[in-house]
Amino acid sequence: MAETISRWPAGRVVTLAGGVGGAKLAHGLALAGLDDRLDVVVNTADDFQLYGLHISPDLDTVMYTLAGIANPATGWGILGDTAATLGMIGRYGRSTWFWLGDRDLATHLLRTERLRAGARLTEVTAELAAALGVTARILPMCDEPVATLIETPAGRLEFQDYFVRRRQRDTVLAVRFEGIEQARITPEVERALAEASVVVVGPSNPLVSIGPILAVPGFRERLRAFHGPVVAVSPIVAGQALKGPADRMLASLGHEVSPLGVARLYQDFLDGILIDQLDAELAPAIAELGIVVKVADTIMRTNDDRRRVARAVLDLARELMGAAP
Amino acid sequence: MAETISRWPAGRVVTLAGGVGGAKLAHGLALAGLDDRLDVVVNTADDFQLYGLHISPDLDTVMYTLAGIANPATGWGILGDTAATLGMIGRYGRSTWFWLGDRDLATHLLRTERLRAGARLTEVTAELAAALGVTARILPMCDEPVATLIETPAGRLEFQDYFVRRRQRDTVLAVRFEGIEQARITPEVERALAEASVVVVGPSNPLVSIGPILAVPGFRERLRAFHGPVVAVSPIVAGQALKGPADRMLASLGHEVSPLGVARLYQDFLDGILIDQLDAELAPAIAELGIVVKVADTIMRTNDDRRRVARAVLDLARELMGAAP
Repeated sequence: MAETISRWPAGRVVTLAGGVGGAKLAHGLALAGLDDRLDVVVNTADDFQLYGLHISPDLDTVMYTLAGIANPATGWGILGDTAATLGMIGRYGRSTWFWLGDRDLATHLLRTERLRAGARLTEVTAELAAALGVTARILPMCDEPVATLIETPAGRLEFQDYFVRRRQRDTVLAVRFEGIEQARITPEVERALAEASVVVVGPSNPLVSIGPILAVPGFRERLRAFHGPVVAVSPIVAGQALKGPADRMLASLGHEVSPLGVARLYQDFLDGILIDQLDAELAPAIAELGIVVKVADTIMRTNDDRRRVARAVLDLARELMGAAP
Repeated sequence: MAETISRWPAGRVVTLAGGVGGAKLAHGLALAGLDDRLDVVVNTADDFQLYGLHISPDLDTVMYTLAGIANPATGWGILGDTAATLGMIGRYGRSTWFWLGDRDLATHLLRTERLRAGARLTEVTAELAAALGVTARILPMCDEPVATLIETPAGRLEFQDYFVRRRQRDTVLAVRFEGIEQARITPEVERALAEASVVVVGPSNPLVSIGPILAVPGFRERLRAFHGPVVAVSPIVAGQALKGPADRMLASLGHEVSPLGVARLYQDFLDGILIDQLDAELAPAIAELGIVVKVADTIMRTNDDRRRVARAVLDLARELMGAAP
C-alpha cells in the first residue's frame, strides 16, 4: 500500500460509480491507499420511494462496500442481513418484490427522516458514511430527484420495475432521466473535480449508471475540460457485462457490446481506458479514437483483485500525466 | 364459547383499552364469542414519532394481542421478533432506548406511509388489523394527534421518555393531554357507542390510558348518558397495578391506590365494577358510591383467564341490564 502511495502523485482522485462494479473499483482505490483522498460521485437516478422510504440503491452499495459490510455474494445489501420486516410487510398484503434487509432498512429510515427534515442528500450521505467509518467522500451526483425511465415494448417502466421486478427481460428502446434538467452539480462535486488530479470512470453500466451522472447539466462539459487525465475501466469483458444488463442494453440501443463500444460512448472526454486481457485485440481500434489503452486482468473477485485493478488504472493515469505537455 | 354467546344479550360491546391490560380483556371478550361484535376504543395519547415513523404503542398492543401474535413474555411487541434494524440504527450513532422489533417496524412503516398520504388513523388501523385477520374493530380514540405530558420534579417529560427511557422513576406531579381540545369523537366511535348494549372499561391505567379517552371532548358526557350499563375491571389488585406505574401515579396524584380509588375516578359514569377477590373487603365502600360490585379472580395469565374475566364482567353487565327499570 505504501508503495502505491509513493508512486501515486499528490492530489485527490474522483471516481464515478453506479452500483456493484463501480463500488468495487472505489473500494480498490481506497484499499490502494487513497481512502482519504477519494471522492466517489454516485448515480442517484435509480433512487425511488418504497413504503414511504427514500431508497438510494447505488449510494448504499458504494457505502456498504467502502465500509466493508457489503454482502459479497450479491455485491449489494449488508452481509448477514435478515428480512423480518419485509416478511411482515408481505403479511400485511403488500408487494415485496424489492428486497429490503432489516439492517439495510436503518439506512433508508434515517436517510428519509433527515431528507424530510430538509437536509440535502449530499449531507445525509456524508453523515451515514461517517458513522460507518468510511473515510472516502461519497457524493450523490446531485441533490435533486432524477428518475431513470426505461422505454420498452411493454411500455415505459420505472427503473426498479425494469431492473428488479421484471428482471431486465424487456428490450430497451430508450432511456430517459426524468428531472435531469433541474439537476445541478453540487458544490461538493464541483470542489471534488477542482481538487482531483484524475477522474476514474468506474466499470458501471455506461447507459444507466454512468449515463445519468454525465447527463447532469454541465457535468460532461466539465469532464471534457478537466485539467488532468480522465480514465475508465471497461464494464464489458469478452462481450458481456460483468453484472447487470449493460450488454443487452448496449446491443438493443445499437452500440457495440465491447470496450470499443464503451470507449465510443466516452470518446469526447476520455483519455485512457483499462480493458480486460480477453479484449486485447480491440486495443488498436480504441487507440484510433485517440484513447490510450492499457490491458490487464480486470475481474474483481477478491479485495486483492480490487486493489490490483485500482493500481492498474492509476498507473494508466500516471502515464498520461507524465505524457502531458 | 357457545354458552356465553347464548347467555349474552344481542348487541355489540364497546371496550376501552390502553396497552397490555386492556388488550388482554379485549382478547378475552373476543375469545368469549364477541369477536365480531366488539369495538375496542384505544388510547392514542402515547403515540409519538421516532426515526420519522408514527408509532402507536397501544393500538399495536391491542392489534397484536387480538391477532394472536403478541409476545406473551412482555405483553407488547410481536412473538419471536428480532431487532436487527434497531441494532443498525445504533451503529449509525442514534439513541435506541425505545425497543423496535423488525416485524413490528412493518406496522410503523405502513401506518406512517398511509398517514402521510392523508388517510385517517382510524382507516389505517382498520386496514392493518384486517390484514392480520382481526375481526373486532380497533378504533383509535380520535384521529387528531394528542400527546400525554408528565409533569415531574425533573420537569415536563414526553410520555415515552417518562415511561420507557426513565422507567417511570419520576414522581408524577400532573398529567396533561396536549392537543386534546382539538380531538373529536370519530364517526366510528360514535357509531360503536350507538350500537353497543354495554361499555366495558378495561383494566388499563385510569390516568394515562383510560384518562385520555375520557378527555376527548364529549366522550365522558357520552358515557354518563349511555343507554346501557357501563362496567369496569379494576386495574388495581391488592394495592398494586398489575403492570406499569398506575399505582405510583395514583398515589402521587392523591388518589387511593385500590379499586375504590379507581371507582371514584369513574364514579360519574360507572354502573358496575369487577374487582379482584383479594380486594373483596372494599366492596361495601364501592357500593356506597352507587356502583354495583362483583368479586372474582381478575388476574389474566392465560387465554382461559382472559375468557373467564371477560365472562365475569359480561355477567355483571347482564345483571345490570336485568335490573334496569
